[in-house]
Amino acid sequence: MNSFQTVYRVSYSDTDQMGFMHHSNYLKYYETARWELFRSIGIPYPEIEKDGIILPVINASLKFIKPTYHDQKILINTKLKTQSGARIIFDYQIINEAGEIINEAQITVACVKKSTGKACSPPKKIRDALYGLTDESTRLSYD
Amino acid sequence: MNSFQTVYRVSYSDTDQMGFMHHSNYLKYYETARWELFRSIGIPYPEIEKDGIILPVINASLKFIKPTYHDQKILINTKLKTQSGARIIFDYQIINEAGEIINEAQITVACVKKSTGKACSPPKKIRDALYGLTDESTRLSYD
Amino acid sequence: MNSFQTVYRVSYSDTDQMGFMHHSNYLKYYETARWELFRSIGIPYPEIEKDGIILPVINASLKFIKPTYHDQKILINTKLKTQSGARIIFDYQIINEAGEIINEAQITVACVKKSTGKACSPPKKIRDALYGLTDESTRLSYD
Amino acid sequence: MNSFQTVYRVSYSDTDQMGFMHHSNYLKYYETARWELFRSIGIPYPEIEKDGIILPVINASLKFIKPTYHDQKILINTKLKTQSGARIIFDYQIINEAGEIINEAQITVACVKKSTGKACSPPKKIRDALYGLTDESTRLSYD
Repeated sequence: MNSFQTVYRVSYSDTDQMGFMHHSNYLKYYETARWELFRSIGIPYPEIEKDGIILPVINASLKFIKPTYHDQKILINTKLKTQSGARIIFDYQIINEAGEIINEAQITVACVKKSTGKACSPPKKIRDALYGLTDESTRLSYD
Repeated sequence: MNSFQTVYRVSYSDTDQMGFMHHSNYLKYYETARWELFRSIGIPYPEIEKDGIILPVINASLKFIKPTYHDQKILINTKLKTQSGARIIFDYQIINEAGEIINEAQITVACVKKSTGKACSPPKKIRDALYGLTDESTRLSYD
Repeated sequence: MNSFQTVYRVSYSDTDQMGFMHHSNYLKYYETARWELFRSIGIPYPEIEKDGIILPVINASLKFIKPTYHDQKILINTKLKTQSGARIIFDYQIINEAGEIINEAQITVACVKKSTGKACSPPKKIRDALYGLTDESTRLSYD
Repeated sequence: MNSFQTVYRVSYSDTDQMGFMHHSNYLKYYETARWELFRSIGIPYPEIEKDGIILPVINASLKFIKPTYHDQKILINTKLKTQSGARIIFDYQIINEAGEIINEAQITVACVKKSTGKACSPPKKIRDALYGLTDESTRLSYD
């Protein structure tokens, strides 16, 4: 898969008194980027929740390489890494206006039935939509 | 009613690059103080939601008098002003460690049935708990 | 002045367990809209801070009319009401995708010298840029 | 080192529409717990910044094991893992009221000179305060 790209402008409320974006806010931008990727392949996240499925984050690993400042535009590259069992793993990079990589992350969400709180295999609609995004080498067969 | 008092320490993530607490975060502290007042009179907010009622904010008016800094202790005075129809109105003051009033607010929540989204009179349990808090002059009779 | 319009999509992290946007987050969107208005008239907010001026919020009054949901587009109408002394007052409305007014607010910022923390009259660059935005009836003369 | 323990109550604004704490907010609680540990060993974080040093997060890895709900008390175990060069690494666990581990994290901060933005070895005051906290096996000698 080629990366899916979205661009955001850093809000003033994202900063803290160090003068740049507070580290917790990267997770918010990554989440928004993830659901924009989902929208682009025909599975808007609100529809997933209407079908009784939630996709909470179960693992997140972030590397903060350079600070990001208020009003800067950041470009987020979102890439589906694998979907296996209940897990969907995304690789991310954030590039600033100078073209520098400022943040990298890997975030795993789990497919969970809202009514039971139990992990489950993603519904066929999601699996089909994601299938085209995975690299051939990481594709798993569903029967 | 005498004010109900709670004390919080301002988090680093509450600050922005101006070097003091971002104005949006006062609403979060006021909310927490409101539910602590509710807990103190025997109606913890999670139980209210379990009974199918939510209490969303419908009006908020805030006066930012002085900045609040990371790690400062702030004392919030929360006072029930009135409960009338679906509306419950709170008056707030925040005092810093130097004893100065740094923020004042009036916040109105509405009693809403979660299932319908419609405003409603608070259940008797809430009305009874709140009754003792209102000033005599603002007490309304329920029949 | 005609309103200055910006459009945002509500983030998942803006919601709370009531299922719609947490009331504190409106202030963040209003802030972003305010600085977009400033950018549009040639005074990007980061440049103002570089000149040693900050514009903290000193008053905010919000009316929450209808809830806003994740992934909805919201249109914010931002209008400069007056600039007088150190104070700059903005009137806001938020319109949802159905064309309904869901939030109204009036927010006042003060012009403050960062080095001293003291209120001051806005620098000429800001006053001139804002001048064209005020309604004739509210224009004040500067000499 | 034995873990340093702090207890927090989850705020309503920490939740999202899944009905439990949004994943980004764990980083805020971990940060607060980190500075409480620093206060307990005589180096309150505001004093560190006054000395011209900031401690931004450069790596964070989180495992979300169970959800955390509004109004629940969470106990955070914070443990200094190592201090080496500019890096200080913390291991965390969050325990809920039922005694279950609900989140684990490893977070690395870097010691940075605020004026230059460059990484640096922590000032002696910080190194001395941290020294007693590291396990013998991870102690490095400073000369």
